[in-house]
Amino acid sequence: MKSKAVQDYYPDDVALCYGCGRLNEYGHQLKSYWDGNETIARFTPKEYHTAIQGFVYGGLIASLIDCHGTGSAALAAYKNENRDIDSLPAFRFVTASLQVDYLKPTPIGVELVLRGKIVEVKGRKVITEITVSANGEITAKGKVIAVQIPENFSKE
Amino acid sequence: MKSKAVQDYYPDDVALCYGCGRLNEYGHQLKSYWDGNETIARFTPKEYHTAIQGFVYGGLIASLIDCHGTGSAALAAYKNENRDIDSLPAFRFVTASLQVDYLKPTPIGVELVLRGKIVEVKGRKVITEITVSANGEITAKGKVIAVQIPENFSKE
Repeated sequence: MKSKAVQDYYPDDVALCYGCGRLNEYGHQLKSYWDGNETIARFTPKEYHTAIQGFVYGGLIASLIDCHGTGSAALAAYKNENRDIDSLPAFRFVTASLQVDYLKPTPIGVELVLRGKIVEVKGRKVITEITVSANGEITAKGKVIAVQIPENFSKE
Repeated sequence: MKSKAVQDYYPDDVALCYGCGRLNEYGHQLKSYWDGNETIARFTPKEYHTAIQGFVYGGLIASLIDCHGTGSAALAAYKNENRDIDSLPAFRFVTASLQVDYLKPTPIGVELVLRGKIVEVKGRKVITEITVSANGEITAKGKVIAVQIPENFSKE
């Protein structure tokens, strides 16, 4: 499996996500890669992504977990079919359910590392567990149930 | 109970939150009010807060639930002590745990209404259930476990 970010291969019409779309110039443009059997993404919050002064806003942490969860789900779906991430048709997931536990305050001003474990791939559903670390210490963890976008999603 | 937003009375040093701080010029500045026995907040996503084209980014929805949860927790804490929200010492909560279920795609371009129910007030912990509606239809629901900020939070 080559080390490419799955979001770099989302088709243009599903690459607008504020969290991870490469075509959203205002967004976070999170990128999810394989790292061994885990997935990894990195993000450095802006100074204004604050909760209480000195610490990262919990909503941003939830957003990053959400996006790395759907990105990891797409990575897992390709792997499950033994396909490369630049092959077609593309996999694109949305979140059905998100659980985040804030274990300790996340310091602002450093790069955050998100690590994902693929817990289950079943039909159109992928479950991942994500940790968020700052300075090598896990500050939050989450669980994301992602589902492959229905083909009629944009027409609902 | 007067209809004032609890966030308008957060002390300056805890009013910087990207989600709900009135002093964060880059943030959402969400405001939580009482509405009968429920709490309410309103937010209109920007055009770039997109997930898939036409629908709101799930990370933003999680953020709004998170922030309305902590705002609702503060409202509940004042009510629990039969104090007005401009009285001191101020209550300020952070999130310990956040659960979000995305029930259906949330359309972009309309005002979202967040409604909160106070499920439990116990010591420094408040549990709320939040719904997100667009065009009068609930599209997501969440549960927030909020805890009052420890006095030494910023010194940890």
